[in-house]
Amino acid sequence: MSKNFSVVGQSLPRADARIKAVGAAQYADDIILPGMLYGKLLRSPVAHARILNIDVSQAKKLPGVKCVITGDDTLKIKFGNWRLVPESQDEYPLAVDKVRFIGDEVAAVAAIDKDIAEEALSLIKVEYEELPGVFSVEEAMAEGAPVIHELNPNNISLQRKIDYGDLDKAFAECDLILDNEFKVHAVSHAYMEPCACVAEYDHNGRLTVWTSTQTPYFVQCLLAKTLGMRENDIRVIKPFVGGGFGGKMELRKWEFCAAFMARQTGRPVKFTLTRAEELATGRRRHPMSIRSKVGFKKDGTLVAKEFTAYLDGGAYNSMGPTAAFLCGNFGGMLYRYPNYRYNGYHVYTNKPPAGAMRGFGAPQALFVAETQMNMAAEQLGIDPLDIRLKNAMETGDEIPGVATISSCGFKESLLKVAEMTNWREKRRQLGKGKGIGIGCYSFISGGVFNWFNTQYNFTRAEVRAFDDGTVHLLTMASDIGQGCDTVLRQILAEELGLKMEDIRLTAADTAVTPQADLGTWGSRVTLMAGNAVRKAAQEIKDQLYKVVSLKFDLNVIHDLDCRDGMVFAKNRPDRGIPFGEAVRLAQRANRGEPIIGYGSYTPRGKGLVTPAFSFGAQVAEVTVDMETGAITVDEMNTAHDCGTPINPMSVEGQLEGSVHMGLGYALCEQFIMKGGKTLTATFLDYKIPCAEDMPPGKSVHVETYEPDGPFGAKEAGEGLVSPTAPAIADAVYHATGYRCTELPITPEKILRGLGKL
Amino acid sequence: MSKNFSVVGQSLPRADARIKAVGAAQYADDIILPGMLYGKLLRSPVAHARILNIDVSQAKKLPGVKCVITGDDTLKIKFGNWRLVPESQDEYPLAVDKVRFIGDEVAAVAAIDKDIAEEALSLIKVEYEELPGVFSVEEAMAEGAPVIHELNPNNISLQRKIDYGDLDKAFAECDLILDNEFKVHAVSHAYMEPCACVAEYDHNGRLTVWTSTQTPYFVQCLLAKTLGMRENDIRVIKPFVGGGFGGKMELRKWEFCAAFMARQTGRPVKFTLTRAEELATGRRRHPMSIRSKVGFKKDGTLVAKEFTAYLDGGAYNSMGPTAAFLCGNFGGMLYRYPNYRYNGYHVYTNKPPAGAMRGFGAPQALFVAETQMNMAAEQLGIDPLDIRLKNAMETGDEIPGVATISSCGFKESLLKVAEMTNWREKRRQLGKGKGIGIGCYSFISGGVFNWFNTQYNFTRAEVRAFDDGTVHLLTMASDIGQGCDTVLRQILAEELGLKMEDIRLTAADTAVTPQADLGTWGSRVTLMAGNAVRKAAQEIKDQLYKVVSLKFDLNVIHDLDCRDGMVFAKNRPDRGIPFGEAVRLAQRANRGEPIIGYGSYTPRGKGLVTPAFSFGAQVAEVTVDMETGAITVDEMNTAHDCGTPINPMSVEGQLEGSVHMGLGYALCEQFIMKGGKTLTATFLDYKIPCAEDMPPGKSVHVETYEPDGPFGAKEAGEGLVSPTAPAIADAVYHATGYRCTELPITPEKILRGLGKL
Repeated sequence: MSKNFSVVGQSLPRADARIKAVGAAQYADDIILPGMLYGKLLRSPVAHARILNIDVSQAKKLPGVKCVITGDDTLKIKFGNWRLVPESQDEYPLAVDKVRFIGDEVAAVAAIDKDIAEEALSLIKVEYEELPGVFSVEEAMAEGAPVIHELNPNNISLQRKIDYGDLDKAFAECDLILDNEFKVHAVSHAYMEPCACVAEYDHNGRLTVWTSTQTPYFVQCLLAKTLGMRENDIRVIKPFVGGGFGGKMELRKWEFCAAFMARQTGRPVKFTLTRAEELATGRRRHPMSIRSKVGFKKDGTLVAKEFTAYLDGGAYNSMGPTAAFLCGNFGGMLYRYPNYRYNGYHVYTNKPPAGAMRGFGAPQALFVAETQMNMAAEQLGIDPLDIRLKNAMETGDEIPGVATISSCGFKESLLKVAEMTNWREKRRQLGKGKGIGIGCYSFISGGVFNWFNTQYNFTRAEVRAFDDGTVHLLTMASDIGQGCDTVLRQILAEELGLKMEDIRLTAADTAVTPQADLGTWGSRVTLMAGNAVRKAAQEIKDQLYKVVSLKFDLNVIHDLDCRDGMVFAKNRPDRGIPFGEAVRLAQRANRGEPIIGYGSYTPRGKGLVTPAFSFGAQVAEVTVDMETGAITVDEMNTAHDCGTPINPMSVEGQLEGSVHMGLGYALCEQFIMKGGKTLTATFLDYKIPCAEDMPPGKSVHVETYEPDGPFGAKEAGEGLVSPTAPAIADAVYHATGYRCTELPITPEKILRGLGKL
Repeated sequence: MSKNFSVVGQSLPRADARIKAVGAAQYADDIILPGMLYGKLLRSPVAHARILNIDVSQAKKLPGVKCVITGDDTLKIKFGNWRLVPESQDEYPLAVDKVRFIGDEVAAVAAIDKDIAEEALSLIKVEYEELPGVFSVEEAMAEGAPVIHELNPNNISLQRKIDYGDLDKAFAECDLILDNEFKVHAVSHAYMEPCACVAEYDHNGRLTVWTSTQTPYFVQCLLAKTLGMRENDIRVIKPFVGGGFGGKMELRKWEFCAAFMARQTGRPVKFTLTRAEELATGRRRHPMSIRSKVGFKKDGTLVAKEFTAYLDGGAYNSMGPTAAFLCGNFGGMLYRYPNYRYNGYHVYTNKPPAGAMRGFGAPQALFVAETQMNMAAEQLGIDPLDIRLKNAMETGDEIPGVATISSCGFKESLLKVAEMTNWREKRRQLGKGKGIGIGCYSFISGGVFNWFNTQYNFTRAEVRAFDDGTVHLLTMASDIGQGCDTVLRQILAEELGLKMEDIRLTAADTAVTPQADLGTWGSRVTLMAGNAVRKAAQEIKDQLYKVVSLKFDLNVIHDLDCRDGMVFAKNRPDRGIPFGEAVRLAQRANRGEPIIGYGSYTPRGKGLVTPAFSFGAQVAEVTVDMETGAITVDEMNTAHDCGTPINPMSVEGQLEGSVHMGLGYALCEQFIMKGGKTLTATFLDYKIPCAEDMPPGKSVHVETYEPDGPFGAKEAGEGLVSPTAPAIADAVYHATGYRCTELPITPEKILRGLGKL
């Protein structure tokens, strides 16, 4: 591992900073095409019903309306991201026969303006036969509960298991067993940019869709399936995207409707969701009911854990199968659990479907795990820091066949954050409404799993080198605001010894960029696309090294390098030529062929979960007003291991965002539901922390070198949404004696918990 | 040569037919970007002058004007297509110190609308010191003539020579020597779409230019040079183009100005030329003064030719160097000239520069050569058909080191057109104002020459194959209306056994399509890009054949094929699988890598001119009103050899267009000039034949198989502009006894020639 980097490790401004700052970035809703129509969706006003009839005749007659469709107009093909398990695909592009939640898409209109489209919706007459609904996992699993999907008479759509060691034997040997129940709630991605897309059907029978998505490839494939078209007759382009956080990684009904109606009318069709639609009907983080039984030796050694999670999936599977799997994995990570059993149940309810969201099973699993660590520390009389140090995973740890920890800076993170916060002293001394608490995390750097059943490598990069000293990087990786357009260019610039401005990037266009990339989720991009970029760069270098070797008649033992715009023999930098000149000569040698490098990456031999794990520890300091229960987070400090940061400033931004999101999850964000109805459908009702709510604090990188990551890099910024809630909960407990086991932590709960209400 | 084609040889509708028919095709002028400015050019009102001063201060003050530039604002870098000979590059992006023709670009304005830009032009004050001008090659070459470019004190910018055999000895042995002078005139490309472009400079310092061009790659490279940018920081995209005919194959001043001012202002800038600008200042076909001495044996055998052409190049070289070279080649082609000498002089005059135009040296050379053949036939008492048959080139003929005739259907064309028109009988019998005449041609299928000094292969194709049974063809080849988007897809469909709708095409985008392609000129695309496409397809097939061989455990001697969507063993079609399935398996074998094929083509070992020659013969039948001299073309029949036509309907369209353009050249199109001023600057003054002027007639393919062409194809539709003028001239002579040696053939000239005026 050489630390002598030129571009990697630099806090460079993001490639998209300027264009976003000046307001020139084009998002999907900024796209206006000649003759474009505006689409609107008619959503179910009832949580569970049979559709008896839909009459669109009046809507069709409204002047300016060009197209009205219902499920009957479609091919009625079910879809979902889990192509590997076709029966898990449980959504229709538009409702067929039944609606299953308030907001379920029933019909769509395309009209010459938004108001007419809106008015047309009001003219569609739907006859529903209402059915009883279920609104919690408990109701859904109760004997005789109404059935939401016929395939799943018990409303459990799937069960995931993890099991290793001998649990019964292990528990029998424990000195302390905690057996607790927890409830965690749903929160919104609350991305700045509501979903939008524009679809255009061309004169050759091909479709182009610009959409605010994390996963252009998924949208392409699933549109093809549902429209009855061939994948490669569909082109999906990701314009600038204003955040996704997991909420934009599936085919969405409006993408289908835009495409379908564009094909039907021959005119481009745009859909832009309102914030109310996003909040009231959009995907959200899975609420869960969790039971966790965990056993320790007297000295704090973790011995066994039995973890059962009931995921409230809402009306459809969405990414629930993955959430159910990952939640179990996160429940058994971070510490060494020699004996572990997990049962995860994905349960249908008549609520808006939960989906993937930043952390994806980890915030729930780790709120439970970290809270129980804090409980155990107290009961065993051990400092929460020490009990963690005792059990912390280390480099080289392995869960056979499941996961290998090829780099781990967890202990260093624990020690670092303790040092930063003066943990031991404060933990002993605070009180009177002041508390300090800790939460930790481990997270994945992309997934090994192939539920989308792609036949392509997980990611691929193409690099074209030119004799003017520039290169062009083509990748289907999707920058949705997390900064991969910058990071991938840094990786390439480092590899080729070029400057950032030497690199042109074309990304996320399924018709142009190399097949395929699975998109932005699970913190996969830096590691996976980064590795592909490095391999592609290596192919370029191989070609250039040949001509330099030839030109200077180099002995075979010479090592060559690209740096500062030169290609040269490492120990004889005088034997070198500028990068562009090397390209020119390589082309001469190639008889005019262009100089191109390709690289692909698919994790292999890395278990079932991820090629690399990140780690970190966070300490929250709070003040609780003992009269009102009001919580002020005074400080939030973090030490974390993301391997070698490619762009420290960018990592910093991710971490700040994580703290913000973790804070909202812990304290104030929640959907108030009445039956299946989401009452908090504006940002006045659904409270996300404001800038002024952000606590001071630092985050420090504990640098490790991840052998499977590009230049040693791994995940940053997704894992860190998890420790905040348990850290704050622990600090509140430290301050007040109230132990929260049901998020969010509200003043009311504190006061009730303390017997003051 | 297998004739058993599925797609090649089919008269399929053009890929762009529907979108053009419904008016949805986007041309450069249709592009509207947010904040876009409109550019206008200030042109010199004088033919030759020194610029003493330019005052733009008033123009800059006009509200709405965002940018005003003159030559002094630029880097003053000269450019031109002949990068191989830097001193031939004689144009500045905007005039520096001098103007050399009426229309020379002096300054440019970008403003918020066209009217303001126009008004701003009127506020720019230019002080000129007028210089005497020269307006013909004779004036330009006269002793003491004003010097237009200092590098060329005699106004001859270059001389091209071709010389083989022993000319003096050969002439001494001739029985008949003709020694004539000819004058041919300038005509306009008269493309339907006036030139337009839009340039956008982005937040990463990169430039995108959409422009109506035949040669995106040239524009990219020359913009880079003149702007002081790196080639690959510039992206040139060809939208739909409404014809070029050679007039859109250079960097144009407005492209430079749009790019420069977009960079200057940070706003997109559009230029659209008016028809008047196009006609009064645009490129045109080279007028020439020609002397040709040609010698025959009594039996009609051609023995020697000495051919001298003075090209009136106007104020700059433009494509003149190539025209001067090709004119000499065309003068020595078509028939066997055992002894040949050519001297071509490219002469500067103070007129709008001549440039490349459909035929490119051939219409001039062949008007002369074919007229002299007809003169000789008469003087030797041989039928014009027979004298041609005697001397006609044949397959296998070679001009050593210069050209190899690898396929030639010239004799067959002569015989065919004679048969179609009942030539021998009519040639003997007509009279009383009715005549029949013949003209023939030979043309190139792309050029071997590399005057642009590209380091890339002349063309390259990338083909991506998908498991849904589709393929994606990427090429920088430019469809400008001639139909290559259709023909290249036909070639690919044929190679892979697919249907047209299975093929997605992305073309002519320098940032996306493969480097490089030299563009559309010299009838190069079908042969060169077609060959590259075939090679790319072969790479796909190689991969698919492997999996089929593996799957069916095929004996190595099996031949495999792709046809009707299947990949199979040729003699055992049951041993085959669908194309998409073969792709899927090949990807499996490739561990997820996509299935891509590449192909490049550069003509090598084919002499100095072209890889393949087309041939043809045309017969015109006319009626001349002996009182008024008015000429009616009664019929126009053609037999021609374009090898194997890929799309006969498309060839037909090209031929009809050629006849139309040939007709205009022969009879009515001409620039009326006064000094350096073009007076015919509207389509009311500059007369192109209308639909109703088109004569009836047929064109018949004489099929040959060109071994260097894809599926045996070679040039169609460019060569055929040449025979029309000599054929009509010969028919007029046959009808009236007036022999035209100075185009166009007008009623006035006929009456004067017959002594009636």
